[in-house]
Amino acid sequence: MLRVGIIGASGYAGEELIKLLLRHPDVRLTYLSAKIEKAMPVAQMFAYLAGRLDLVCELPSVEEAAAKSDLVFLALPHTVSMEFVPALIKKNKKIIDLSADYRLSDTDVYAQWYHTAHKDEANLGNFVYGLPELYREKIKQSAMIANPGCYPTAAILGLAPVVVAGLVAEPDHIVIDAKSGVTGAGRKASLDFFFSEVNENFKGYKYNTHQHLPEINQELSKLASSKINVVFCPHLLPVNRGILETIYIKLNKAVDAEKIEQVYKNFYKTEPFVRIKGIGNLPELKDVVNTNFCDIGFVVDEARRFLVVVSVIDNLLKGASGQAVQNMNIMCGFQEKQSLL
Amino acid sequence: MLRVGIIGASGYAGEELIKLLLRHPDVRLTYLSAKIEKAMPVAQMFAYLAGRLDLVCELPSVEEAAAKSDLVFLALPHTVSMEFVPALIKKNKKIIDLSADYRLSDTDVYAQWYHTAHKDEANLGNFVYGLPELYREKIKQSAMIANPGCYPTAAILGLAPVVVAGLVAEPDHIVIDAKSGVTGAGRKASLDFFFSEVNENFKGYKYNTHQHLPEINQELSKLASSKINVVFCPHLLPVNRGILETIYIKLNKAVDAEKIEQVYKNFYKTEPFVRIKGIGNLPELKDVVNTNFCDIGFVVDEARRFLVVVSVIDNLLKGASGQAVQNMNIMCGFQEKQSLL
Amino acid sequence: MLRVGIIGASGYAGEELIKLLLRHPDVRLTYLSAKIEKAMPVAQMFAYLAGRLDLVCELPSVEEAAAKSDLVFLALPHTVSMEFVPALIKKNKKIIDLSADYRLSDTDVYAQWYHTAHKDEANLGNFVYGLPELYREKIKQSAMIANPGCYPTAAILGLAPVVVAGLVAEPDHIVIDAKSGVTGAGRKASLDFFFSEVNENFKGYKYNTHQHLPEINQELSKLASSKINVVFCPHLLPVNRGILETIYIKLNKAVDAEKIEQVYKNFYKTEPFVRIKGIGNLPELKDVVNTNFCDIGFVVDEARRFLVVVSVIDNLLKGASGQAVQNMNIMCGFQEKQSLL
Amino acid sequence: MLRVGIIGASGYAGEELIKLLLRHPDVRLTYLSAKIEKAMPVAQMFAYLAGRLDLVCELPSVEEAAAKSDLVFLALPHTVSMEFVPALIKKNKKIIDLSADYRLSDTDVYAQWYHTAHKDEANLGNFVYGLPELYREKIKQSAMIANPGCYPTAAILGLAPVVVAGLVAEPDHIVIDAKSGVTGAGRKASLDFFFSEVNENFKGYKYNTHQHLPEINQELSKLASSKINVVFCPHLLPVNRGILETIYIKLNKAVDAEKIEQVYKNFYKTEPFVRIKGIGNLPELKDVVNTNFCDIGFVVDEARRFLVVVSVIDNLLKGASGQAVQNMNIMCGFQEKQSLL
Repeated sequence: MLRVGIIGASGYAGEELIKLLLRHPDVRLTYLSAKIEKAMPVAQMFAYLAGRLDLVCELPSVEEAAAKSDLVFLALPHTVSMEFVPALIKKNKKIIDLSADYRLSDTDVYAQWYHTAHKDEANLGNFVYGLPELYREKIKQSAMIANPGCYPTAAILGLAPVVVAGLVAEPDHIVIDAKSGVTGAGRKASLDFFFSEVNENFKGYKYNTHQHLPEINQELSKLASSKINVVFCPHLLPVNRGILETIYIKLNKAVDAEKIEQVYKNFYKTEPFVRIKGIGNLPELKDVVNTNFCDIGFVVDEARRFLVVVSVIDNLLKGASGQAVQNMNIMCGFQEKQSLL
Repeated sequence: MLRVGIIGASGYAGEELIKLLLRHPDVRLTYLSAKIEKAMPVAQMFAYLAGRLDLVCELPSVEEAAAKSDLVFLALPHTVSMEFVPALIKKNKKIIDLSADYRLSDTDVYAQWYHTAHKDEANLGNFVYGLPELYREKIKQSAMIANPGCYPTAAILGLAPVVVAGLVAEPDHIVIDAKSGVTGAGRKASLDFFFSEVNENFKGYKYNTHQHLPEINQELSKLASSKINVVFCPHLLPVNRGILETIYIKLNKAVDAEKIEQVYKNFYKTEPFVRIKGIGNLPELKDVVNTNFCDIGFVVDEARRFLVVVSVIDNLLKGASGQAVQNMNIMCGFQEKQSLL
Repeated sequence: MLRVGIIGASGYAGEELIKLLLRHPDVRLTYLSAKIEKAMPVAQMFAYLAGRLDLVCELPSVEEAAAKSDLVFLALPHTVSMEFVPALIKKNKKIIDLSADYRLSDTDVYAQWYHTAHKDEANLGNFVYGLPELYREKIKQSAMIANPGCYPTAAILGLAPVVVAGLVAEPDHIVIDAKSGVTGAGRKASLDFFFSEVNENFKGYKYNTHQHLPEINQELSKLASSKINVVFCPHLLPVNRGILETIYIKLNKAVDAEKIEQVYKNFYKTEPFVRIKGIGNLPELKDVVNTNFCDIGFVVDEARRFLVVVSVIDNLLKGASGQAVQNMNIMCGFQEKQSLL
Repeated sequence: MLRVGIIGASGYAGEELIKLLLRHPDVRLTYLSAKIEKAMPVAQMFAYLAGRLDLVCELPSVEEAAAKSDLVFLALPHTVSMEFVPALIKKNKKIIDLSADYRLSDTDVYAQWYHTAHKDEANLGNFVYGLPELYREKIKQSAMIANPGCYPTAAILGLAPVVVAGLVAEPDHIVIDAKSGVTGAGRKASLDFFFSEVNENFKGYKYNTHQHLPEINQELSKLASSKINVVFCPHLLPVNRGILETIYIKLNKAVDAEKIEQVYKNFYKTEPFVRIKGIGNLPELKDVVNTNFCDIGFVVDEARRFLVVVSVIDNLLKGASGQAVQNMNIMCGFQEKQSLL
């Protein structure tokens, strides 16, 4: 029975981790901590856990985390994770970091987009980017996982097959029009996310300046073995959960819908959590909310050599905690789908 | 042309006042202020005002307000209004206060429910409780209006006819089950009102401890000429605006629906903003949202001598700014419905 | 491995049953049917089931259902279930009926509230009302369960302890102000449930005329061993799921909050799915949505001898399919909580 | 006082027309009709009109409409309007048609996209496309207006300045990613728009096959004096009202944000209902909901020669009834902004 701890248990990702891990037969939740005013029973923090989990959520301590856990999930804001990681590595703990701190291989890019210097370059190279569909074998052998961002997960899974197939015509003009539910912003007191400001509203934000942009470019460029620089425009949906990305791609030759379907179905043919919609069907948020699936659909305009891809995930599951548990399952030799269906 | 100022222009009530007053042919908005970091054009604060109102929202100053306005709306949190009122009165300004500071005639009750001593007892007695359906004649002759609370408006209008008719059997067991949209809480950064906490949720709060309770009791007791003490249980609806109150009343004799209908229709027969639904019809939020109406419906159980009344208003209009403008219209001799239809 | 079938798989309750049963290690879903135009793969009906359940949803047939299943869930509109039940009983199938057809013991009452004569009086007496908290031992021994309605589940669980304790003062004036999410109405094309009619709206309906009223009265009267006739006013919340009922009760003696807490905690002390909030805490929809719990809180006014109880459930889980699976678990000797946590 | 009639008063556009016209000092609503079961007072159809409009909504009759009105708004589904128009023209009535029937100049295109032959080619050429920002002078002199579609209004206003300025690089690869609230679909009983299907959901539909596509292409091509063929992908937002379109345009030369701002501000410098956001600001739905404004913002990537434009309107106002009233004001010599602020 693997002992599992969570640092950052009070946020949305931490909350989802708790729910998933409570149902997992191979692990036991043994440590919870969060930056809260004072320690409190977790069932006081999340009333729906009453009678289900009898654990105190403590203030974060690496020593406690290490003493009580074999594997630690870090569900922390970026720049905070890297304060905890080095000590946990020294104690030989398995780590799955849900922040952005170990996702970007270039620390200059990190500094540019996260407005602070990286503090743990020494360990950076040992982390594996935890997207199982691309890096399952590496994940199996790693003890340190940089869990992907929510927008990047939907974007990379939606684009990987055509990028790898070499079908993209203008690698610096792929357009990703992304729409996310509110939990993507994390749980924080801010007028921007006051109910009446979000409800019955819709807006774009951080066009081409969102911090997930370099992560998307890094991963797509690796797949293409050449530089890809997407146009990335995120929007805020008045829903709790879910991301839908509409991706616009000029193709370098005329291909029909059957060919595209084949490219996608082949690419993901053994994947447990990626589903390709048939021609003429587009996925919707509700197909994947509360699941760990990424559903992908597309529309092809053969004459114009144009492809529109729709990629949907639950931002808290495949976009965060579900993927983190999937990574844990792979790392630890559990069934990959355990607790995720 | 009446020069009108608003202190507290950045909140929901202030915002609604601006919208209403912009359409009013007899007044000119000449002064806006709010507790913000620094003065800014109001169109920067509320983008939808761009091109419609070229006024700077300043930091609050009684002197400025008095110099620039003939009438001042105070759309401030309770306990803050009474810091501004005395100076405005000295300058002979007309005042419509949307806070609770001048609504309760008993300062002990005020102190008990608002957790602070009243600071302006001297002027308290000069304020008229601004519910036109009960106090229109007094409002006409007053220069100081205590604009009613949102919950009390719906409750008092819903109960006044049966209370005045002497039909209530147990004056300390009237039950008011109230449901309000989120803007009722004011615009403030708080995790309680984070979108994902309110959306797809519903909850009760402050059962019998809400600060609007003494206001309801005071007004109903005046109408009954005897003590009324209601059971008041408010709830938070996942909508932007609107209040619906379901009111449960034991009657002291068997009366049928026709009789009740007659009691209500007579009571409000000349009122421009109260509408009584016919037997068998209940009002809904959407009948009144974005209007200054209070719609009232009811169901009678003659055998059990039981009456259920439903009273609905828009909390920001008839429950706040619409009623404030109605009061201004009455005070200033404008058409009572001006800008409210 | 129990073979399980569902008749009425296309509605909200059927959908939830599928989700719950897919996770259940002791059963296998072997038969799905619904009144649809033509048979189709269930993953076509519910896209999120793609890759998870490879079963065709057929047109309803008792023969097929009986041939393929050991236990059949009927998730059908009332008056439809009783057309299928007799034949299933003849084939010795276990039955869990989610409709109202076998809940009311008095067929005159059934006819009055459901506007049609009962068609299967012969089997009526053999059904057990499937509220485990009251009838667990009978459920264990029965093969025919009448699964309770959603509103009645929250109402009866919220009231049972004080009714059994003999604390209710006026058994014909208990007030239940109930608020339900939209899925409670079933999946049907109707302008009343068009998004824009429900969103940003709130309304009451069927005050004292809702068909769940006689079910609540029947069960509470049984508990009290005397007639109880509640005032029952349901309302429609703009949320997908969840019921919150605020229940107002005059007590026949002065009791304090500690005493009430004790009454409730004792009554449910061994129950896996009922949780009593501590004094000063009220449950909210989000504490129970997507769970099988019923959470109960209360506020006591000792001086006025008045009790306000708040009871919340997920209408599709504890109020329908979750409770149905709980009943199956009890009937079949599975762990009672299996697949429900 | 102009006598105004509405055919199609029961839909969302008809409802908004009634609200706007009730506030209009220069017109009187004299005729309402809709395809309903039987004639009924309009206040019965829309409860919020109780006490405000004492008019019966009749079954549609051209004779009645013509006898009672000087100007008739047709708020009907496409293919239905053209059944009423010829007779109204014969009676010399002014017509503002909110359907698509007189928007497309090419009847083959109409037949292709609306799946039926055009029935009134004779009058087609006399209609003016009612987008005041482009055709104000023609509108002034016309008695027949084809009121633009909601998606086209936002798209054309968002694109016109750069198209006219000749800055578009690839006229067949402009991408319009459009998101609309639910009232855009009209009021109709359909499972697709059941509350629980739309709420907490988001989806794309009719990618490149939406019937508004040829209208957008026709108008943009006219402006460009060459063929423009956009990629048009609409999505359904879980909100009542509002359209936000994110428009992606490759430019044919490097221009900076200041230059783009100047192009837009110049183009609309005298327009009362188009507002251009300053550099660095994007418009949101709530800036324009319940107003007749179209707000436009943009982000420029000079290096990549790429422009992203955001255009927002209220689909029922600037996208339908508000624009229709604006057209009436222009046609009839009223103040253009009358009743629209």
